[in-house]
Amino acid sequence: MKKHLTTIILSAVIVVLAAVLVGILIFLKNQPVQQRATEPLVDIKAYEPDSSKWGLNFPNQYDSLKKTKTNKEDTQFGGSSGFSWLERDPRQVILFGGYGFSKEYNDDRGHEWSLEDVNNTKRVNEKTPGTCYACKSSNNPGIWNTIGLEAFSKMPFAELGKQINEPIGCANCHEAGTMKLTVNNPAVIAGFEAQGIDWTEFSRQEMRTVVCANCHVEYYMAGESKVLTVPWEDGTDIESILGYYENIGFKDWEYPEAGTATLKAQHPEYEFFSAGSTHYEAGVACADCHMPYVRDGAAKYSMHDIHSPLLNPELACGACHTDVEYVISRVNEIQGQVSDTKIAAEDAIIDAITAIKAANAISPNDGALLDQARAFHRKAQYLWDFVSAENSTGFHNPEYALKLLAEATNYARQAQMLAAQSVGNPALLTTGVYYQPPE
Amino acid sequence: MKKHLTTIILSAVIVVLAAVLVGILIFLKNQPVQQRATEPLVDIKAYEPDSSKWGLNFPNQYDSLKKTKTNKEDTQFGGSSGFSWLERDPRQVILFGGYGFSKEYNDDRGHEWSLEDVNNTKRVNEKTPGTCYACKSSNNPGIWNTIGLEAFSKMPFAELGKQINEPIGCANCHEAGTMKLTVNNPAVIAGFEAQGIDWTEFSRQEMRTVVCANCHVEYYMAGESKVLTVPWEDGTDIESILGYYENIGFKDWEYPEAGTATLKAQHPEYEFFSAGSTHYEAGVACADCHMPYVRDGAAKYSMHDIHSPLLNPELACGACHTDVEYVISRVNEIQGQVSDTKIAAEDAIIDAITAIKAANAISPNDGALLDQARAFHRKAQYLWDFVSAENSTGFHNPEYALKLLAEATNYARQAQMLAAQSVGNPALLTTGVYYQPPE
Repeated sequence: MKKHLTTIILSAVIVVLAAVLVGILIFLKNQPVQQRATEPLVDIKAYEPDSSKWGLNFPNQYDSLKKTKTNKEDTQFGGSSGFSWLERDPRQVILFGGYGFSKEYNDDRGHEWSLEDVNNTKRVNEKTPGTCYACKSSNNPGIWNTIGLEAFSKMPFAELGKQINEPIGCANCHEAGTMKLTVNNPAVIAGFEAQGIDWTEFSRQEMRTVVCANCHVEYYMAGESKVLTVPWEDGTDIESILGYYENIGFKDWEYPEAGTATLKAQHPEYEFFSAGSTHYEAGVACADCHMPYVRDGAAKYSMHDIHSPLLNPELACGACHTDVEYVISRVNEIQGQVSDTKIAAEDAIIDAITAIKAANAISPNDGALLDQARAFHRKAQYLWDFVSAENSTGFHNPEYALKLLAEATNYARQAQMLAAQSVGNPALLTTGVYYQPPE
Repeated sequence: MKKHLTTIILSAVIVVLAAVLVGILIFLKNQPVQQRATEPLVDIKAYEPDSSKWGLNFPNQYDSLKKTKTNKEDTQFGGSSGFSWLERDPRQVILFGGYGFSKEYNDDRGHEWSLEDVNNTKRVNEKTPGTCYACKSSNNPGIWNTIGLEAFSKMPFAELGKQINEPIGCANCHEAGTMKLTVNNPAVIAGFEAQGIDWTEFSRQEMRTVVCANCHVEYYMAGESKVLTVPWEDGTDIESILGYYENIGFKDWEYPEAGTATLKAQHPEYEFFSAGSTHYEAGVACADCHMPYVRDGAAKYSMHDIHSPLLNPELACGACHTDVEYVISRVNEIQGQVSDTKIAAEDAIIDAITAIKAANAISPNDGALLDQARAFHRKAQYLWDFVSAENSTGFHNPEYALKLLAEATNYARQAQMLAAQSVGNPALLTTGVYYQPPE
């Protein structure tokens, strides 16, 4: 009997020990893995522009940020090499005729290149305002906090440049100390406020999209001071943005010999992605695809080497999609469809420009018709550019991209017809295919 | 010691019994649930047209097939009520001007209505060939097997009608006896053969799409005998189909006063869905969404009450998608985008028709330009109709739908311009919005 009792007690002890061990292992496995600083934590002062200081506390994030300097890989339609759009698609030389983008228009490179690339662009001259530094440096949040956006914007580029020595970095998205994601671009804060939105009420997951909107948004330079402004007063959808520009009578430049008050879309990733795209509606954030989580030993961190998810699809797409090969084939299919449709829109807009220039050269019988042609050219060009300047070849919102391109083509063709009508000359109706890429 | 042994033996027996029981339950749970006939199995003769006889063996499938007679529910853009397209979108009266579809064009109703609806359509007259019964009856497979497709096609509609008394039913998709899914439409078999495809090599899952292609395909009536023919010789993509029609110089009708050799797309669901759509590429079959599995007690069967998945999304979409409410919102968003873009294409095509008719009325200076205008009108109309006649408001392949509609609009506008050029009259360039639906 005593032997029995011993066996039972021993067995019970073993069972309890095993259960506790399993419980502890399960608990540990379900713990979020914390970033482990490899150096003692240092204090980061507010708006610290030097990312290497933040990097002492967050070495993995900082190391991956620095990779945006060396990663130069391209995808089929985009990438990080900084190729020339004007060489790849010479139609754009015509489409941006008379504007800086017809002289140089290079694809964006990684964040670490931002300062060097803006300093070296041929579009900068002595008239360039400080505004053009707005999305290029981690010095900005501190400067905005000190002198405000208007003083920043109207300062000549060269003069402001003396205060700017860092590319995009930690301070552009994070609050020092708390490391909270933050909106610190005063123009974007104002853009949210104009819609009655308090950005501080966004959830953490929403902020993983909204911080990107610190820069990846449509903007223009308002008034004499060239103040950076986002045109969101009536909403962030393209119809609201176009309506806003109509209301304030804004143009980026006048198309030479055509007289069209033309708009240049900037990089409206936030507006385009949030316009009802399937990923956005499903609650996916920019960072989910562009900054996937990776491990360094026991440390789990979000990659700060931001680039096309097509360059690391297992990490970027594989977090949600089980069949990554399939996903890549879908992206390729969709980007091909958008690219084809985009080029057809470009040919149509060039036809419109040609016709409007020709009608403008001979005094039109009906100036109102030619004005209408210009209005349609302006609209067609903006709809097209909203898709073209957006960095995803439509993939951030595929159906929306294709719908906008269909509308752009329709407006461009009608612009061409109106130009011909304005001078009663159907010879203006010839159509062309303006560039055949080498096979 | 004896007591010990008894305990051990008893415990061992309990463990073994419990393990066996668990094993059996797991095995049973993983068995595919078989259809249980509620009547003794009866023999079905080959090509049996009477679905009620097959129904003795498969009562659940038969009962659900019969529901296609009573289900008349609509979705936002389609459904089963059989509404008039000409009333809903009066542009189509113009687009099909001079052709039967401008007199009556009702949305398709359920399979059980097929015979009644074809017999009652106003498009049938004394010249109508037997071909028009080709997708309307379960009598067809037997008749094709007996007299062949050519005799079937060239027989006058009224005469062939005497042999046809059943709507679409079991024999249209199944082989009697084995119940195997089968391609029995000789035109479709020939269409696969022309591409070097042996349909008998399709997998079961592929056949759950391919049987639908017995009817849901583009077709035309070839030659004097009006033989049902699918234009797949060069492939099932729209460019190949258009090329095929060009090569044989085919037209469905000549557009009155315009002289365009016009094509009517039929119901190209198979071609449209299989042209690289995301669901098709992921291996999803038509039946997965349109014939989801349901249970009747212990019996699991595929619903034969085929209709829009939007009417039972929990079953149709929920088998793969966890968030059905989200999925429905996506379908609505996409169908809305396609519908808007489709209507813009329609307005553009009507503008082209108006211009070509006007140019044709006055003898054109340049007949070649007017011919080119007609060629572009033909192409625009077919691209649009390929999306419009396809029963999903683009959802079966959203990006493809939007790309085709962008192309259709572009061709239509160029057709209009060419017509104006052909007579040197820019007054032909006016544009219109041809119908504003009531708010």
